[in-house]
Amino acid sequence: MARERLVVIGGDAAGMSAASQARKRRDADDLEIVAFERGRATSYSACGIPYWIGGAVDEESDLVSRTAEQHRANGIDLRLRTEVVAIDLERRQVSARDLDSGREYEQPWDALVYATGSVPMRPRADGFDAPGVHGVQTLDDGRALIAELDSGRVERVVVVGGGYIGLELAEACQVRGLDVTVVDRSATPVGTFDPDIGTFIAEAVAKMGITLVLGDGADRVETGPDGRARAVVTSTGRRLPADLVVLGLGVRPDVALAEAAGIPLGGSGGIAVDARMRTGVPGVWAAGDCVESVHRLSGQRVVVALGTHANKQGRVVGINLGGGYATFPGVIGTAVTKVCDLEVARTGLSEAEATAAGYCYVTASVDSTTRAGYFPGASPIRVKLTAEKRSGRLLGAQIAGREGAAKRIDVLATALWNEMSVDEVLGLDLSYAPPFAPVWDPVLIAARKAFEAVEADIRRDVRNGTHG
Amino acid sequence: MARERLVVIGGDAAGMSAASQARKRRDADDLEIVAFERGRATSYSACGIPYWIGGAVDEESDLVSRTAEQHRANGIDLRLRTEVVAIDLERRQVSARDLDSGREYEQPWDALVYATGSVPMRPRADGFDAPGVHGVQTLDDGRALIAELDSGRVERVVVVGGGYIGLELAEACQVRGLDVTVVDRSATPVGTFDPDIGTFIAEAVAKMGITLVLGDGADRVETGPDGRARAVVTSTGRRLPADLVVLGLGVRPDVALAEAAGIPLGGSGGIAVDARMRTGVPGVWAAGDCVESVHRLSGQRVVVALGTHANKQGRVVGINLGGGYATFPGVIGTAVTKVCDLEVARTGLSEAEATAAGYCYVTASVDSTTRAGYFPGASPIRVKLTAEKRSGRLLGAQIAGREGAAKRIDVLATALWNEMSVDEVLGLDLSYAPPFAPVWDPVLIAARKAFEAVEADIRRDVRNGTHG
Repeated sequence: MARERLVVIGGDAAGMSAASQARKRRDADDLEIVAFERGRATSYSACGIPYWIGGAVDEESDLVSRTAEQHRANGIDLRLRTEVVAIDLERRQVSARDLDSGREYEQPWDALVYATGSVPMRPRADGFDAPGVHGVQTLDDGRALIAELDSGRVERVVVVGGGYIGLELAEACQVRGLDVTVVDRSATPVGTFDPDIGTFIAEAVAKMGITLVLGDGADRVETGPDGRARAVVTSTGRRLPADLVVLGLGVRPDVALAEAAGIPLGGSGGIAVDARMRTGVPGVWAAGDCVESVHRLSGQRVVVALGTHANKQGRVVGINLGGGYATFPGVIGTAVTKVCDLEVARTGLSEAEATAAGYCYVTASVDSTTRAGYFPGASPIRVKLTAEKRSGRLLGAQIAGREGAAKRIDVLATALWNEMSVDEVLGLDLSYAPPFAPVWDPVLIAARKAFEAVEADIRRDVRNGTHG
Repeated sequence: MARERLVVIGGDAAGMSAASQARKRRDADDLEIVAFERGRATSYSACGIPYWIGGAVDEESDLVSRTAEQHRANGIDLRLRTEVVAIDLERRQVSARDLDSGREYEQPWDALVYATGSVPMRPRADGFDAPGVHGVQTLDDGRALIAELDSGRVERVVVVGGGYIGLELAEACQVRGLDVTVVDRSATPVGTFDPDIGTFIAEAVAKMGITLVLGDGADRVETGPDGRARAVVTSTGRRLPADLVVLGLGVRPDVALAEAAGIPLGGSGGIAVDARMRTGVPGVWAAGDCVESVHRLSGQRVVVALGTHANKQGRVVGINLGGGYATFPGVIGTAVTKVCDLEVARTGLSEAEATAAGYCYVTASVDSTTRAGYFPGASPIRVKLTAEKRSGRLLGAQIAGREGAAKRIDVLATALWNEMSVDEVLGLDLSYAPPFAPVWDPVLIAARKAFEAVEADIRRDVRNGTHG
């Protein structure tokens, strides 16, 4: 049997996980693997870039979990600084360009993995492509931003977008001693949280000394005579002076190549894939930030750019390519971040998402402590649950608190994944000892309160004659 | 309708939760509640006592979550320092003795809640009842022990038993600057952990400067001419000098009164109860350390003395007594503790328990970090999983690590509760950001490795012709 040829486009989490898994299962005599990466690095943590910028992480190389040399030693023909510029589905080949030499060549494939990741959202409005406006997605982007910050010319930074990445970048600039303003169209930052939890985030950001301009979007970037960005002008006409503008509007799937080639996209704008991560084109697989996933609660297809999904999806592709069988079971929207010393996390549907998905629900919020109240180091934690009306099925959870608070979201994510009702959650045998939790863990107190809300809602309906 | 009379025996977590819930649902005109407690305090955290002894918790009153006055203001006739000495099931009354006045009287009931808790295990051998030998179960016990330690006469402490409570008490004495030895019959401390995790615990204990005498039980206590304990002599004849002996052998359900009255016990030695926490005697309920619970994995009935179960069970009793409906769904053996800076936790079945329950299984252990490896404060974590042969169903999990490690057990407890296979666990959408987890959370890495072990085992069986 002839050696099969696998081409991987994109050398970060998804692509290299796929390549590594396939290699683990099939040796080089059986499967040739060529991976193209347009950047200088491979298998790096994009999520770690803000911490590198802020100085919590010392070296760029700390963010690289596996180097090009390691992949090559593993029998993967990895080509850095090489961009795939076209995919020919008919002839089953890609056109690759060596970014240093400019040389372009064709590379044939029997199987293709599309793992291009995402690109930072950049408004089309005036000035957003000017020098001094930075998106931060790759290590190269991070290095460019650090060079700017190190230049000594930057005192005032405006971050456009107050989502996860926006706030992480704002904090990174703030700890470097800069004057930072975050501008966001929403009334509270990180719009994937309910407004009540978002208010906590806004307070933590303000406490850090970062200026928040909310309910007001960035309309355009004003440039100076040198063509460089010098201010952000908002929709209401406010002028926010800036030596540097950082884009924190989130990312969108990098599907340009796929679209041009005719690989079908889904309604969410990501590559459409099935459970095994196969695209609509035989022999073409996709994984990572560029694909859409099934949200297990809403049933919708969503694009979630997160390293953990990229790794898992890449593994699924690699196992399938390697002759095994694996599927990706979908997502439930779990996320966590840290803003100064505030930890926030969420899973499932926010109130707005639950409504959009057609659910009726009740909510319950409780304030408790991460350890027994009397134990040293006990810190505040708020847990908010959303439970389906009548059934009490857990639909969503959000947590805000200090050290030790946020990771509890995983318990609720696991409960939600298993379609537990809040009454069932209340029965869970969770660990208890004074250094780790109050005798009623905050998760259980929240479940108890949510259950009471479900019951009260039923009683109300019975009284009103609307039960049934 | 005549006012119903409820008598509660035992004024800690289970009893007072039951009383409070019942009171919440039925007012004093409808239900009279009399609660007897032989100690001086009510609703206190027995689990917090070691931290009070060690000084991490300042005041005895910090451990009391609700005072007698609060309960009384809530319409519960709480009688402290009053011991129930007999239960008459025929006449439906208890005999109560005021421990201060010596007065004894009868109290009739229509419903009875038996919530006596547990008593420290005390060997019947010579000297274990001598002065200078302390069991620590109640606040009164804690105060007595602290008085001894404060007397200045104590330099050397021998703790008999290296389980949770034994180690917590040993650490408490150690941080007070005493010379502490722990003696335990098992080869590794905290026998509910597998020996490989137990070894971590032994190392942490030794590092703290506590002497561990393992594989050797306490045979007897040697007393001095004053009748006071002065050494523990082990089964192999070792003599461990002690100014104070602390019993850390765990507890057994306090069922003496129930047994005498004819309330049926289960095979495990605890009071037998049904899902609603009813005993075998109509009108008699039981909850807390004194009852047995269903272990959801082994199907066995077990006694687990833990404040979190006591609170939940008490709540269930109170709701049912109050005219509502609630059940206690059983336990899966989740537990957590801290030994110096080592955090250890477990859920489900240990290897020995899995074997005893008839399961065949594979295990997998992984070493990872609590945060992204490059992130400041990342600490080591080991996760060990036990998965059923063939099905891959998660049977047990154990965690050992530093700050931020142990509470992850709750994710695995929730997965196990929902009968997930390790393959399914691997698909879970757990939270990820560098300050909180590596891109593959240690829980997921462990699930991946356990899944590989399950698959390897199947291949082995197929090769050996034993698959089917």
